[in-house]
Amino acid sequence: MKNFRQQHRPKKSSLVIGRNAVIEAIRSGKQLDRIYLDTKAHGQAVNEIKELATLHHIPVNYVPAAKLDGFNITGHEGCVALIAKVQYHDLQQIISFTVEKGEVPLFLILDGITDIRNIGGIARTAFCCGVHAIIIPDKGVGALNEDAVLTSAGALERIPVCRVNSLMKAIDELHMNGIKVFASEMKAAKKLYDCDFREPCAVVMGSEEKGIYPALLKICDEKIKIPMKGDFESLNVSVATGMILYEVMKQRG
Amino acid sequence: MKNFRQQHRPKKSSLVIGRNAVIEAIRSGKQLDRIYLDTKAHGQAVNEIKELATLHHIPVNYVPAAKLDGFNITGHEGCVALIAKVQYHDLQQIISFTVEKGEVPLFLILDGITDIRNIGGIARTAFCCGVHAIIIPDKGVGALNEDAVLTSAGALERIPVCRVNSLMKAIDELHMNGIKVFASEMKAAKKLYDCDFREPCAVVMGSEEKGIYPALLKICDEKIKIPMKGDFESLNVSVATGMILYEVMKQRG
Repeated sequence: MKNFRQQHRPKKSSLVIGRNAVIEAIRSGKQLDRIYLDTKAHGQAVNEIKELATLHHIPVNYVPAAKLDGFNITGHEGCVALIAKVQYHDLQQIISFTVEKGEVPLFLILDGITDIRNIGGIARTAFCCGVHAIIIPDKGVGALNEDAVLTSAGALERIPVCRVNSLMKAIDELHMNGIKVFASEMKAAKKLYDCDFREPCAVVMGSEEKGIYPALLKICDEKIKIPMKGDFESLNVSVATGMILYEVMKQRG
Repeated sequence: MKNFRQQHRPKKSSLVIGRNAVIEAIRSGKQLDRIYLDTKAHGQAVNEIKELATLHHIPVNYVPAAKLDGFNITGHEGCVALIAKVQYHDLQQIISFTVEKGEVPLFLILDGITDIRNIGGIARTAFCCGVHAIIIPDKGVGALNEDAVLTSAGALERIPVCRVNSLMKAIDELHMNGIKVFASEMKAAKKLYDCDFREPCAVVMGSEEKGIYPALLKICDEKIKIPMKGDFESLNVSVATGMILYEVMKQRG
């Protein structure tokens, strides 16, 4: 039976090993969860790593050499970095890339959905439905970790995620690229199937409790509702997202 | 702050209090989770309760009088019964009732979905979409308890559930009533939106791991799939159910 340390030892493929490799990784834009530095490590490369880490907001853990040896790797030179489970992407780059591929952009914006497992579940559906990227705010949402990836059944490793500073600005960016933004709202007048999703578009989903933030709702182009039977109109947000994306998929054939 | 016993004391409204009341409840078909009998209780009515309990498969807990006094009720005569959170219904009765109301029957059959919280989640969607009853097998699925009701956001107290001895027989019964049975299957050729759901119908959902039991699949009238983008065709069963029921709702206006 594996002991605790072995069970929790990161896979070699999720590590960047050695001083120069870590510097290269940061410079090339690879997202790192954290850097482990031998407390006794010093020299020019080590100083550079510290500076880059500060610049890119990567936490540095100062650990005894034994901890690094525990990773069971050679040539770490007192420096190992853990690659983030989910790599975040730049929204404008994804938009450009999608358009260049000749595809009609489809984005999903999650407002107030802060539970990372909930985001994982939605990501699974989004990936199945051909969403080009999920846009989440960086406030209130933790880094998408192993739990999130597990809940997504691996989808979070395959669908791009854009973690943005402001959802308002993200919608502005979508607008500037000619992308229409639909907001899912229970009280909306327009029914889901009366909308045209064949054009470039994004859909905003709010949390079940609070819905979409009013200022954000205001700058959306159209408010849509899923017509329900009876007075008990309370769909789970993951199911509601599924219904909307199904309608989009259907219209796009 | 409430103590443990107070927190876990059932609400008065979920209790049947007193010997004759319990006899009446069982005779009238009310479903009871269990009966609490004072170990010292005896007499003709007590014997009748024991016989009825055996006949209707209701568990009897023999408890000291103090336990019954702890319910903080009067007149219990050494006998209190706990009303089941979810009342099960007879399938034929629901079919007849639906047709009499002039509605087009819509049923949801869950095969191999044994987790009661999963059933609760699906029930929430089903209720929102106007499903007339959920049909589940009585084997492998525990009684739908408070956890299930909570996950369903209360929907399980409002949507009829038919707990049947055999799903095969249930489908036979649906067929005899002129109800078409669709099976959701990933490998099906027919796309969800190419089906006509305006006629009386039922939809069978299988578990994510095993799908629908082959013999059951065989007697279904049509196999349908949700068309997906890409090769990663793995929707959560609750989300898949939502997409199918949305399509039905849409077609039925």
